[in-house]
Amino acid sequence: MKKLIVALLLVLPLALHAESLKSPNGELELTFKVQDGVPTYALNYKNKEVIKESKLGFELVKLDNLMKGFTLVKAEKSSFDNTWTPVWGEVKTIRNHYNELEVTLNQTSTDRNILIRFRLFDDGLGFRYEFPQQKNLVYFTIKEEHTQFAMAGDHTAFWIPGDYDTQEYDYTESKLSEIRSKMNITPNTSQTSFSPTGVQTSLMMKSQDGLYINLHEAALVNYACMHLNLDDKNLIFESWLTPDAQGNKGYMQTPCQSPWRTIIVSDNARDILASKMILNLNEPCKIKDTSWIKPVKYVGVWWEMIVGRNSWAYTDDLPSVKLGETDYTKTKPNGKHGANTKDVKRYIDFAAENGFDQVLVEGWNEGWEDWFGHSKDYVFDFLTPYPDFHVKELQQYAASKGVKIMMHHETSASVRNYERHMDAAYQFMVDNGYNAVKSGYVGDILPRGEYHYGQWMVNHYLYAVKEAAKYKIMVNAHEAVRPTGLCRTYPNLIGNESARGTEYESFGGNKPFHTTILPFTRLKGGPMDYTPGIFQTQLNKVNPNNNSFVHSTLARQLALYITMYSPLQMAADLPENYEKHMDAFQFIKDVAVDWDNTVYLEAEPGDYITIARKAKGTNNWFIGNTSDENGHLSKLDLSFLDKDKKYIITIYKDAKDAHYEKNPQAYVIQKGIATAKSKLKIKAAPGGGYAISILEVKDKKEMKGLSKI
Amino acid sequence: MKKLIVALLLVLPLALHAESLKSPNGELELTFKVQDGVPTYALNYKNKEVIKESKLGFELVKLDNLMKGFTLVKAEKSSFDNTWTPVWGEVKTIRNHYNELEVTLNQTSTDRNILIRFRLFDDGLGFRYEFPQQKNLVYFTIKEEHTQFAMAGDHTAFWIPGDYDTQEYDYTESKLSEIRSKMNITPNTSQTSFSPTGVQTSLMMKSQDGLYINLHEAALVNYACMHLNLDDKNLIFESWLTPDAQGNKGYMQTPCQSPWRTIIVSDNARDILASKMILNLNEPCKIKDTSWIKPVKYVGVWWEMIVGRNSWAYTDDLPSVKLGETDYTKTKPNGKHGANTKDVKRYIDFAAENGFDQVLVEGWNEGWEDWFGHSKDYVFDFLTPYPDFHVKELQQYAASKGVKIMMHHETSASVRNYERHMDAAYQFMVDNGYNAVKSGYVGDILPRGEYHYGQWMVNHYLYAVKEAAKYKIMVNAHEAVRPTGLCRTYPNLIGNESARGTEYESFGGNKPFHTTILPFTRLKGGPMDYTPGIFQTQLNKVNPNNNSFVHSTLARQLALYITMYSPLQMAADLPENYEKHMDAFQFIKDVAVDWDNTVYLEAEPGDYITIARKAKGTNNWFIGNTSDENGHLSKLDLSFLDKDKKYIITIYKDAKDAHYEKNPQAYVIQKGIATAKSKLKIKAAPGGGYAISILEVKDKKEMKGLSKI
Repeated sequence: MKKLIVALLLVLPLALHAESLKSPNGELELTFKVQDGVPTYALNYKNKEVIKESKLGFELVKLDNLMKGFTLVKAEKSSFDNTWTPVWGEVKTIRNHYNELEVTLNQTSTDRNILIRFRLFDDGLGFRYEFPQQKNLVYFTIKEEHTQFAMAGDHTAFWIPGDYDTQEYDYTESKLSEIRSKMNITPNTSQTSFSPTGVQTSLMMKSQDGLYINLHEAALVNYACMHLNLDDKNLIFESWLTPDAQGNKGYMQTPCQSPWRTIIVSDNARDILASKMILNLNEPCKIKDTSWIKPVKYVGVWWEMIVGRNSWAYTDDLPSVKLGETDYTKTKPNGKHGANTKDVKRYIDFAAENGFDQVLVEGWNEGWEDWFGHSKDYVFDFLTPYPDFHVKELQQYAASKGVKIMMHHETSASVRNYERHMDAAYQFMVDNGYNAVKSGYVGDILPRGEYHYGQWMVNHYLYAVKEAAKYKIMVNAHEAVRPTGLCRTYPNLIGNESARGTEYESFGGNKPFHTTILPFTRLKGGPMDYTPGIFQTQLNKVNPNNNSFVHSTLARQLALYITMYSPLQMAADLPENYEKHMDAFQFIKDVAVDWDNTVYLEAEPGDYITIARKAKGTNNWFIGNTSDENGHLSKLDLSFLDKDKKYIITIYKDAKDAHYEKNPQAYVIQKGIATAKSKLKIKAAPGGGYAISILEVKDKKEMKGLSKI
Repeated sequence: MKKLIVALLLVLPLALHAESLKSPNGELELTFKVQDGVPTYALNYKNKEVIKESKLGFELVKLDNLMKGFTLVKAEKSSFDNTWTPVWGEVKTIRNHYNELEVTLNQTSTDRNILIRFRLFDDGLGFRYEFPQQKNLVYFTIKEEHTQFAMAGDHTAFWIPGDYDTQEYDYTESKLSEIRSKMNITPNTSQTSFSPTGVQTSLMMKSQDGLYINLHEAALVNYACMHLNLDDKNLIFESWLTPDAQGNKGYMQTPCQSPWRTIIVSDNARDILASKMILNLNEPCKIKDTSWIKPVKYVGVWWEMIVGRNSWAYTDDLPSVKLGETDYTKTKPNGKHGANTKDVKRYIDFAAENGFDQVLVEGWNEGWEDWFGHSKDYVFDFLTPYPDFHVKELQQYAASKGVKIMMHHETSASVRNYERHMDAAYQFMVDNGYNAVKSGYVGDILPRGEYHYGQWMVNHYLYAVKEAAKYKIMVNAHEAVRPTGLCRTYPNLIGNESARGTEYESFGGNKPFHTTILPFTRLKGGPMDYTPGIFQTQLNKVNPNNNSFVHSTLARQLALYITMYSPLQMAADLPENYEKHMDAFQFIKDVAVDWDNTVYLEAEPGDYITIARKAKGTNNWFIGNTSDENGHLSKLDLSFLDKDKKYIITIYKDAKDAHYEKNPQAYVIQKGIATAKSKLKIKAAPGGGYAISILEVKDKKEMKGLSKI
């Protein structure tokens, strides 16, 4: 498969100061220059400017900066083309095909060399800085990375505020020039914004001449997470790294490199969704035996707490808790502790009856009376259950029904404490039959002064994943740094939150267009545990004191299992809410969580997304559409189906009068027979969508009574 | 043994604002008052002022301070008297005898209660703040503790500069009023001084009217280490806690308390040395089975590196190291790597031949080419030996000779890294027959911004000790926070550095009076791994490039095994240096490291100390004297010996013309017979001292040829 085309070594005369490179299909062109000693790059797509001439460089602490005085001493070009197979994913195999330009720069005054490696794919550009070990550059501390992304126009952007601690913001769609005026910092348990024009990656943009541009990073390892700060007079974004407790932004030891800075570009929005460039820029899988890594569909004791009907805490008696000193058996139970043996068994029953793999249980362990906001060090031990949660009994019960319980490790961002207990906590999981953990990092980080997205924590998150792999444990980390494709290298990282998830529907709601943006932004780095599937969208029906509602129709909730790609999918609503709509729930039961193929049918960020996916190892397809507050009319062509096959198609769509706010539960289910020649015309309601299952007919009897659709 | 005298509960009228308390022997008197809402205390000794009226209180972050507006709502007095047996120590049993005053204060405006608990012993006062759990005080953050110690005069003090990161300073003897002008911050690999009049505890003082006063703290647990800042106009010391990375000084969750603030006082300097008050203020031993905790006499591969003759590093090839990536077998050995199998065997042989328990080996593991000063996170793994250090072979060799190898864990102050590897590192020790570790914290702390003496690190050091106990490992931590008597509670903490040790004799030298002060200061909190026993005091004889010399005579080097109490004693010099003076070395071979009794014969801080100790489980006594640059003439009375016994006495003393600089190796050994009636007159040279062994005669033949001394 691997086809390494012979590198063209071009050792050029000292006068050299410019290089250019084209993508394999020739549509993208990179230009690299050293202008008056300053390295710059620019990127065109089909002769349109994507990135105007933009500077590159680093400001260092105590050392001379790596910003100017450079000469280009060497330029090497090469090509690479291979195809690899992900452990799980949207497609069965992924082609990694790029042309590469590696430039070596020498800073004359300090005699230091740096390399910049550009990889130009048909779907975009990735580049990174590399720092070889050398006499004059062994250790250095980054004050700031100054990588520019000079925009060619006042694009429309889909952005969230830059923040060192949280990504749980609603998106704003605005012109770049409007970012400053539309900056809206909504509250969170831990947050640190830094600039009136600072935004986060992955950032999605659309130019007036129809280019879709995505800025992000790949392979964020032992480095601070990058934000983008906009010079809104000149429309130039510049990297803005997350600092540490002392204000420094990175501790480097050569040989080392930055993460890849990525620019995905196309004139077709669907190509942005389809791009696997960020995965391709990550290292191949480092876990040898991956047989234990399996996609997971799950339910859990969670939404009942998020909605406020039940509690994580066991008692209301305690103003604060000292683990190991507080005797819970002497406290009065508050009567609404969700993670109790009886109710967990009900979830296990429901999971087993409906084909779910796992049951997440949050609030099972001591400490929840008092768990964040107090800079508390020893907040959880990850081992000690509440008196009403019987670990062994539940494990046996779950095992007898072929279901696993999913572990929950809320760290409260007290990461020293988590690391101290990590081995014992993972061993406890192994001993008790758990193979997946949802971890959480709510609140300000301990060590105090560190941020969620600084180098220290970036190091921690990966440590937790690598340690978990030793125990064959899959990790789904919430409130962690947003992913950058590391799931290729460590596929036991099966999920992350790192965005505003479904929980916010209970905290005032997400904007109706939210799920038409996330696949263009947050999901470019890796899957999100979005926890869809809320059927009872009026939350006061679950908790009379909760006046929020889910900004989605029920039909769209089904679609999210397709549009929000993840190998880990929760059916987040309460069993009793599903039991009222078992016809619609059938889609969640049927839908796959791992795929052999994906076809991006329609896409426009902020408006709609329609995706078809072929379930792993089958001929079954599933389609999902999510639409913004204006709804959307899809005209679909099922030509991706096997021409020789017939399929039972079931369409779960918004009823005519459905509306995310006024009539969210109005759905229609249509069943018929489909072939590759079928064409569909389906309307998504405002804030609506639809889901479709297309199951291969294996026995003609299945078609009885059904007509072509 | 335990005799808890009935508490006198005095619930007094609201007008109450003063209380007083006397020590069991009546010589110390504490007065506590609430003056205009501010709590104050004062301490007298034999009617002399020790502490003038001094304020108490806390400044908090974001909450109202706990400084004023208090009323005294309750005062309780009680007495306590018991005797306990330390696992190891200077004496067989320790009496814990005090009168206690517990005052409850209410801050009316906030309705918060705090308690102050005073324990008045015959040898001093300990007091601490206690914060009960209450509605209005659950979590709080300390901005500063404002505990005053108002001095009654311009005392002579023996002090080192206040510093958040190091105690490795030479002492200055000066008036309090001269501290500012004599402040001298000598360089260290990690240091942070904070005030021109800041000093460290334990602080030793002497008043003009002959009072000896020591200020320190006891039971420093989960709290920042206290420094003292002097208001040198008014001669008032005030507590100055070590901050964290954000400048805060303590994160507290009620119920909780401060460490004990301690004032040891007497008109006889020997009582300061004899005081066990700091141990008494610590909690009883929390380790149930202590059978594995044993005092240790050791030699080691260490001084040869300290002197600069050999190196910790294996090679000089590497500008920096990445553990796991650097292949040492491909580097060129530098030929002076100390921790090589062959030379370690030589040390094992020497240890076995001379009755030592262990051989410390530093520099055995990969990473020393590049080990501090670079804020390096993954600096050591504590598991991987250099190619020339064969763990199994050496363990077998050592075991065959009845000797253990002592583990060395240099953390480079990268404590996240250490904690991540700690379990594996301790398990490695167990698997390979190690039972004691010397740990080190050289360089600036990671997490960055934290200090060696902040709450974060205080928590870490104890964590390392408690985790070690699970593996039955003894800990000797260097560069850690200075001890505060925690070795009572965790007797596997058998040593600490936390002061300027013998190594500085190789880095320019310690002042000649250094060892006449340490027992009054640093040693009050717990034993020090001072690493005495340097016979070749002219260091250019070991390394021609080292022009330092040890500021001590050879005879005094012997004395330190007695005057510097520790259950862990190193004979730090090279075997070949001992082999040239086997007659003097006999004392080191004979001397015990655990004791049934101690008699403090003579003491004057900064001048001289003479101590006699009775070896555990024997009738053998050992005496040591250390003297300052003026020397000292001792007139000793051996009446502490058993009246019915005879002893072989061997005196190792400075020759007449001995001098720490001009003639350090001039010693005389005198042997004879001693009884309880014997009287000795021995002169210590300038920077000199003497050592005496007094071994019970069990067989008259031993006395043959010896005469009464």
